[in-house]
Amino acid sequence: MSFPEALSRHCPRFQIAIELVGRRWNGVILLALARGATRYGELRDDVPGLSERLLAQRLRELEEAGVVAREVTPTTPVQIRYTLTESGAALVEAMRPLMAWADQWAALPADQSAT
Amino acid sequence: MSFPEALSRHCPRFQIAIELVGRRWNGVILLALARGATRYGELRDDVPGLSERLLAQRLRELEEAGVVAREVTPTTPVQIRYTLTESGAALVEAMRPLMAWADQWAALPADQSAT
Repeated sequence: MSFPEALSRHCPRFQIAIELVGRRWNGVILLALARGATRYGELRDDVPGLSERLLAQRLRELEEAGVVAREVTPTTPVQIRYTLTESGAALVEAMRPLMAWADQWAALPADQSAT
Repeated sequence: MSFPEALSRHCPRFQIAIELVGRRWNGVILLALARGATRYGELRDDVPGLSERLLAQRLRELEEAGVVAREVTPTTPVQIRYTLTESGAALVEAMRPLMAWADQWAALPADQSAT
C-alpha cells in the first residue's frame, strides 16, 4: 500500500477519533471516567462548568461512539453507572501522549497563560 | 493540585493541540513532513486532494504554531524547504497512538467502510 493510499485509508477514522476527543468536554469526561467516576453526580462534580444537560448529551454521544457503557440496575431508585468500554479505555491511553505534548509545547494565548 | 484544577489547567492546551492536529489536512501534512517531504511540490504530491492554496495556508498556520519551520535558500530560483521543528516531530509521535486507536476502533459511517 503506497503512502497516499495509506493516508486516505487512515484519514477518515483519524478524523472521527480527533473529533470525538476534541469535542468540548469529551476529553474531560473520559478522563473523569478513567479516574473511576461512575455516577452521573460524580461526573458532574468532577467537571466544573459543565451543565447537566450537556453532560447528559455528551454521555449519550460517547455511548453511541462505543467508548462509554451505561449500565442500569433496576433498583428503586434506579441506579445508573457509566464506565469506559475496552475501546474507551484504549482511547484515554491514546489521548495521553497528546496531552503530554500539549502540556510541554502548546502555546496559550497570552491572557490564558499560567502566571 | 486537585483533579479539577489539573484538568482546567490542562484543558485549554489540550484543546489547542487537538484543534491543531484535527484541522482538516494538518495531520496528513505533518505525516508527509515526518516521512521526509521537504519541498512544496513533494507535499502537494503526497497529499492528493489538497489544493495549492490550502496547502500554503496550512503550512503558514503550522509555522505559526511552531511545529513547522520554513527555510529559504536565496539561490535563483529561491529554494524553500519545510521541516518539522522539535515540537512538530514530537507532535507527530504524539498523534500516532490516536491514529492506531482510530485504525482499530473508530467506526466509519457505512458508506466509507473498507470492503
